[in-house]
Amino acid sequence: MNPLNASADIITHIKEHRSVREYEKREISEKDLTKILESGIRASSSGNMQAYSIIVTKDINIRKELYPHHFNQEMVMDAPVLLTFCADFNRMRKWLDISNAPENFDNFMSFMIGSIDATLASQNCALAAESLGLGVCYMGTTLANAHKIGEVLNLPKNVVPIVGFSLGYPKGVTNKKDRLPLSSIVHEEKYQDYTTSEIQEIYREREQSGMKRYKDVRELNEKIEAGHIENLAQVYTKIKYTKESHELYSRNLFEYLKEQNFFN
Amino acid sequence: MNPLNASADIITHIKEHRSVREYEKREISEKDLTKILESGIRASSSGNMQAYSIIVTKDINIRKELYPHHFNQEMVMDAPVLLTFCADFNRMRKWLDISNAPENFDNFMSFMIGSIDATLASQNCALAAESLGLGVCYMGTTLANAHKIGEVLNLPKNVVPIVGFSLGYPKGVTNKKDRLPLSSIVHEEKYQDYTTSEIQEIYREREQSGMKRYKDVRELNEKIEAGHIENLAQVYTKIKYTKESHELYSRNLFEYLKEQNFFN
Repeated sequence: MNPLNASADIITHIKEHRSVREYEKREISEKDLTKILESGIRASSSGNMQAYSIIVTKDINIRKELYPHHFNQEMVMDAPVLLTFCADFNRMRKWLDISNAPENFDNFMSFMIGSIDATLASQNCALAAESLGLGVCYMGTTLANAHKIGEVLNLPKNVVPIVGFSLGYPKGVTNKKDRLPLSSIVHEEKYQDYTTSEIQEIYREREQSGMKRYKDVRELNEKIEAGHIENLAQVYTKIKYTKESHELYSRNLFEYLKEQNFFN
Repeated sequence: MNPLNASADIITHIKEHRSVREYEKREISEKDLTKILESGIRASSSGNMQAYSIIVTKDINIRKELYPHHFNQEMVMDAPVLLTFCADFNRMRKWLDISNAPENFDNFMSFMIGSIDATLASQNCALAAESLGLGVCYMGTTLANAHKIGEVLNLPKNVVPIVGFSLGYPKGVTNKKDRLPLSSIVHEEKYQDYTTSEIQEIYREREQSGMKRYKDVRELNEKIEAGHIENLAQVYTKIKYTKESHELYSRNLFEYLKEQNFFN
């Protein structure tokens, strides 16, 4: 493998990512699926403990059960495969148990370790899938409704869903999403906090393109026209992500962590 | 770009990952560093909010301050660059504020959203870096000592370090780590819990190679010889990750979340 060509390809490939919400009616071969999953388990994991599990759901009946918990996002039904990456210390704790080793990993730190492990593995799977011509769409509902999804997927104690995505062949071409300027995400040496004028500058382009996009959504445009929504920031916390919804998800998730033996 | 070649390269590349703990004394060009960071910000993020920041630390004096909080891991001093990926809702909240939008994202769910965003971005950076001939080593200490690292890096409220790695040119070649069998990480349709004999089978190879490796570490071998350590599982929770240490990290992290305005 020529490292120069490889680097050009991989970085180009990474930058070509877009979320795919519409899928062809076409199965994924077992061979490709295995390549994707094998890529997942090569990701770094804390102490090489691999504190995660990957659940591959194809059965239409199970996906039907998951559908409302993913807030009826059509990808759940339309894509042939759903991958759910879970923080998992169940496997490890069973091994400790039969090895007469002191128990551990039933605490918040362990939940976070498993979450990070699961997320790193998911991104390897996503990039591997995209290199095979497949598309993915991450669904934040995996975590927002972790307790309900965990129930459908039969998760035992010390296992919690963290990230998940639909997986399949893209129907048509989706546009790449905008990103905030690199310089607004990156800090040199230490964190440099933002002034008001820097914040205005950082969000200027997104503000313009975002409002234009939302004006095309009739329901949203009515609110914009009626003056209930003045700008894109208000679209975020008046409509898409309200404080009430996030406080509810927070409580549910925290309760579920206790239930799943990750917070004693 | 020929998709067939690309896929072969990218999956091969992903599978070639190994943690790099020894580095050449050689700087990373600004051009390459930019490519790596640009790859990071193309990762999926919840609602495209990009709720994370990346801190690029090169200054040897700041790395000296971080060194004990990373438990004196030599990579912190030896690699030319340290990347710290933080969950960050500070930027977004400042934007909401100047936009007269309802506030949000000062809760546990938002912390988790930021953590996942930061982790996805980190894996894109890691893979991009490796494609340029660089090596990385993720450090779990980033989270275990988040409160201390956050202090050194001047993190404001609603910003918390999640993952971090050293970055530089590898000195010599490191071996790839073993992984548990793919079938033990992947579940078909729903979670299939493990029987005792399955657990024995899953960990058999790791048990053998792991104990062999640890016998080469004199200090550990003395404990093994003295009968204090009977097997690899005991190495994990009697020595590497004790319940006491993880309960301390859990308390510290949870207190820090409250302090950083992520748990009200």
